[in-house]
Amino acid sequence: MSVLVMKFGGTSVATLDRIKRAAKRVGREVANGHDVIVIVSAMSGKTNELVGWVGETSPLFDAREYDAVVSSGENVTAGLMALTLQEMDIPARSWQGWQVPLKTNGAHGAARIEEIPTDNLNAKFGQGMRVAVVAGFQGISPEGRITTLGRGGSDTTAVAFAAAFEAVRCDIYTDVDGVYTTDPRITSKARKLDRIAFEEMLELASLGAKVLQTRSVELAMRYKVKLRVLSSFDEYDETAGTLVCEEDEVMENNVVAGVAYSRDEAKMTLISVADRPGIAAAIFGPLAEAGVNVDMIVQNISEEGRTDMTFSCPVDQVKRAEQAMAQAKERGEIAYHDLVADTEVAKVSVVGIGMRSHAGVAARMFKSLRDENVNIKVITTSEIKISVLIDRKYMELAVQALHDTFELEKAG
Amino acid sequence: MSVLVMKFGGTSVATLDRIKRAAKRVGREVANGHDVIVIVSAMSGKTNELVGWVGETSPLFDAREYDAVVSSGENVTAGLMALTLQEMDIPARSWQGWQVPLKTNGAHGAARIEEIPTDNLNAKFGQGMRVAVVAGFQGISPEGRITTLGRGGSDTTAVAFAAAFEAVRCDIYTDVDGVYTTDPRITSKARKLDRIAFEEMLELASLGAKVLQTRSVELAMRYKVKLRVLSSFDEYDETAGTLVCEEDEVMENNVVAGVAYSRDEAKMTLISVADRPGIAAAIFGPLAEAGVNVDMIVQNISEEGRTDMTFSCPVDQVKRAEQAMAQAKERGEIAYHDLVADTEVAKVSVVGIGMRSHAGVAARMFKSLRDENVNIKVITTSEIKISVLIDRKYMELAVQALHDTFELEKAG
Repeated sequence: MSVLVMKFGGTSVATLDRIKRAAKRVGREVANGHDVIVIVSAMSGKTNELVGWVGETSPLFDAREYDAVVSSGENVTAGLMALTLQEMDIPARSWQGWQVPLKTNGAHGAARIEEIPTDNLNAKFGQGMRVAVVAGFQGISPEGRITTLGRGGSDTTAVAFAAAFEAVRCDIYTDVDGVYTTDPRITSKARKLDRIAFEEMLELASLGAKVLQTRSVELAMRYKVKLRVLSSFDEYDETAGTLVCEEDEVMENNVVAGVAYSRDEAKMTLISVADRPGIAAAIFGPLAEAGVNVDMIVQNISEEGRTDMTFSCPVDQVKRAEQAMAQAKERGEIAYHDLVADTEVAKVSVVGIGMRSHAGVAARMFKSLRDENVNIKVITTSEIKISVLIDRKYMELAVQALHDTFELEKAG
Repeated sequence: MSVLVMKFGGTSVATLDRIKRAAKRVGREVANGHDVIVIVSAMSGKTNELVGWVGETSPLFDAREYDAVVSSGENVTAGLMALTLQEMDIPARSWQGWQVPLKTNGAHGAARIEEIPTDNLNAKFGQGMRVAVVAGFQGISPEGRITTLGRGGSDTTAVAFAAAFEAVRCDIYTDVDGVYTTDPRITSKARKLDRIAFEEMLELASLGAKVLQTRSVELAMRYKVKLRVLSSFDEYDETAGTLVCEEDEVMENNVVAGVAYSRDEAKMTLISVADRPGIAAAIFGPLAEAGVNVDMIVQNISEEGRTDMTFSCPVDQVKRAEQAMAQAKERGEIAYHDLVADTEVAKVSVVGIGMRSHAGVAARMFKSLRDENVNIKVITTSEIKISVLIDRKYMELAVQALHDTFELEKAG
């Protein structure tokens, strides 16, 4: 019997009617002969409510209690989905994380999956169960406490189940109908991609395209899980959504697959830092300890033993970064003249596995931005990505210009 | 170290502020030197919402999924209470039913507690934990599924923990400040009782005084748990609320402790039933199978081999009772002329352990009702209780008259 994994996000199970609609999709796959593992999120808004209550109760909360509280929304949806399927005469039951058990490490709030034993579910499939509805986002720690996998963790739950059960496919139902060349709210020329390579999806996910949790893509890549993102609001057909797959399965040959952006970035510059061996560690060690997610780093050319060091981070971490630097200065670990924060910047990136074999992408990108008079403040590159930091007010303009330049409205 | 059990009902944990207030009470008991086991209900309204969703999804629901869904509200409160206590620097953690584990039988929706192992919690108390916050109402079945104990089940959870841990006391915090001689909404003369015997509380609980779940009182009686009902809204003092205790600890010597009522009763009469051996079994067997909770039963004097049989049941079970009787008649198991339902009746009862040693309580009761021109339709008695079925419109009048007759406004 072939196992299919279907994941429904919060908006797809937001009401009893939507749960019913999702159950009908599950019913079709059962009729197609699949045993189905359904992964459900909490009804939309529920997890935010619980997170709010925890934050209000205890600003520096015990992550074990946070997990015990915020995991409860998924349990409700799992039970309701199982009941809905039973009403359709489909043998189904719900499973909470600890019942599977989905074993994680003890990193509460952002736990990593360590093992998903298949014997419990397989035994039930063997007895005639056709659908296992599993509460997403949650697991159990070695100490027997409830853990959660971080926001968006139900995607990762789904992929991990698909890997453990060697599923034929892992379908992620969400409120968008697939992965786009860029955000359709920024340009109406944005085009839905039929396929995208894992590596590209990974860059897009981490760059702010909120379709899939980054870790779920990593996991799918590692275990070669066929991952499909599709809308729970459209009628189903075989070509629906976007298939996230191995590079050689991607038929298109556009050099650039998509343009991503991240709006709320800040650029911070330490002016006149003493340029000595170990200075980078002295700066970025304290920042990491303070929980600042440093993204891009640029070091200016050194003059007379001093240099400027520029880095970017999310705009809401600027205060934390300033504090960490001031304290390091006080402790005598670093010396600098000033720390200047520019909180009005955004990051725009072009991503594509085609860049590996095509030169000149960077040059085309920079020319496109220059033609629009957009000044580039920082540049970083990887094998399949080029990112630039620009003034936030030019962000939409830059995305539109790059989308045009690389002709992303056309399938390659 | 002495263990104290404190239970907070839904209204006592309805908001974050109320959880904080409840936590302060817990803090005082910790300061008094107790290790505390706190049992929490769901925030008020939450369980009803979940029950509503289940009913809407699946009218004849799978009770295992019902339990998985409706138990989730308690998990939220348990985590929030643990966090609140931690904010007060009290070492606390939450426990869900399966983590304790609170073992029940497999009767989903109304499971019975079979065992509460004490080693897990005691190990944590030994390591410095001062408060274990336990999600009420829930347990785990022999098959590893989540069970619930029926509405009001958190009371039973509390008493069971008090018994298992040989607690010095079990304090039930609720939205009333104790057990009253009758419902204060019916007569302002109603007086709070300082103490009440288990047997009396049991009769009052099952008669419709919704202060405590009946099973929790049974359990407290069997294991001699000192049970105190008190308001979470008043300031605490040693004499607060009502202590439910052994008969010989009750100081008052009123013959009647209280007047209870049950509004939504129905009186059903099978007219002209063949009076033969086994006829009672032939009638009440099918009713029990149909899930009709028959309360009072009266058989008229037999004439010429035929008799009338009268019984009472909750008014919302009348249809079910009629159907069960009609089917039994069709199958030829019973013969009767007609089944008459009077759905406009209520039950009023006087309860008191003093009745055992005092004659004439029934006579005083009937005279009191006669003086108010209240017609008695059915009478039943037990050792410590007399109940009458009367027209519903006289219910309040009857309660007031009986409260006056037995001078319940005065402490005995």
